[in-house]
Amino acid sequence: MRLDAFVFDAYGTLYDVHSVVRGCERMFAGKGMELSRLWRAKQLEYTWLRSLMGRYAPFSAVTREALAHSCEALDLELGRERSEALMAEYLRLDTYPEVPKAFSSLAGIKKAILSNGSPDMLEPLVAHSGLQLDAVISVDELGIYKPAPQVYELAVRRLDVPKERIGFVSSNCWDALGAKSFGLRVFWVNRARSPLDRLGFEPDRVAAGLDEILL
Amino acid sequence: MRLDAFVFDAYGTLYDVHSVVRGCERMFAGKGMELSRLWRAKQLEYTWLRSLMGRYAPFSAVTREALAHSCEALDLELGRERSEALMAEYLRLDTYPEVPKAFSSLAGIKKAILSNGSPDMLEPLVAHSGLQLDAVISVDELGIYKPAPQVYELAVRRLDVPKERIGFVSSNCWDALGAKSFGLRVFWVNRARSPLDRLGFEPDRVAAGLDEILL
Repeated sequence: MRLDAFVFDAYGTLYDVHSVVRGCERMFAGKGMELSRLWRAKQLEYTWLRSLMGRYAPFSAVTREALAHSCEALDLELGRERSEALMAEYLRLDTYPEVPKAFSSLAGIKKAILSNGSPDMLEPLVAHSGLQLDAVISVDELGIYKPAPQVYELAVRRLDVPKERIGFVSSNCWDALGAKSFGLRVFWVNRARSPLDRLGFEPDRVAAGLDEILL
Repeated sequence: MRLDAFVFDAYGTLYDVHSVVRGCERMFAGKGMELSRLWRAKQLEYTWLRSLMGRYAPFSAVTREALAHSCEALDLELGRERSEALMAEYLRLDTYPEVPKAFSSLAGIKKAILSNGSPDMLEPLVAHSGLQLDAVISVDELGIYKPAPQVYELAVRRLDVPKERIGFVSSNCWDALGAKSFGLRVFWVNRARSPLDRLGFEPDRVAAGLDEILL
């Protein structure tokens, strides 16, 4: 079936978080990879836990809290200045190299971002990258994180396209499967060649990069 | 304030999951620790994701699915027989050494387990260990996992004790903070000396073992 809109996850899907890893390594030599892995794991964990507790906090706050925990766990001295320097990396991430070409191949089709990121993180990021989008949608207005179904529903409402005609693209398998569970047409960009998450659903397509899906 | 009931998390709090780690190591020499860590992380992750997706599956199923994913991620050959052998370890876990003494010091106070474990896992485990409990409460009847507030509410209803008079004991920081967010009096048994999770709450007390809290 023809698709009338593409909705993209932001971090790790359109935007490469590698510069955050580099920032960690610059600051904590020899520990950058371990820190950025733990930070990312805790960041996601806190979004799920706060959602289940009914205690939403914006992604910028959750990301700072996850960083503070991770540094303490690895016995790294963080402090406010380093924390803000690492947080600032999130505002100027590069897009993956295939993004501009993939986007031009989608001329005439609605394109949107649907992200956990709070507006204070997403807006500067999108502006910095110059991507042309019909909508930048944050979970923030709902006060709950992915993969709650109302998050994917928000994209349907905002774009005014039936869910069967929306292609959802994410590099996070659990995010792709959350969208599938809700009823979108789902493309998992499996950059890391990870095994499928076992959550009772499968993506409609799996590819190694955006270009394999969209071109 | 005097407490009228103690409610305990099961896995890692009353019951030592070390024998699961040993089972992994016996089966996959040199990879047991890595496998059991990833398995545990995925097991929890899947409980949170399924809860948020509104796609509950019993803990026994989620635990099997997490094991299958983890073995694939580590390139370990699992198969049905090995999977069932590892799952069987969960049915005969030892209690931590201080548990019997701590329990006898609580004579006359209601004691219960509140666990993610489905009845098919919890019932054989409790029977095997011989622990005397007033209630063994599983999230299974709610179809949602910790730290959703209705899970902790279930303990209040089942024990018929006001939430301010229930002491909740868990070795999982996020579980302790979920209970705190709901309004129980919370004891975090920090066996691993982990840093506090940043979720907007703090436990009422932190200790290295059950005996420090209860005796």
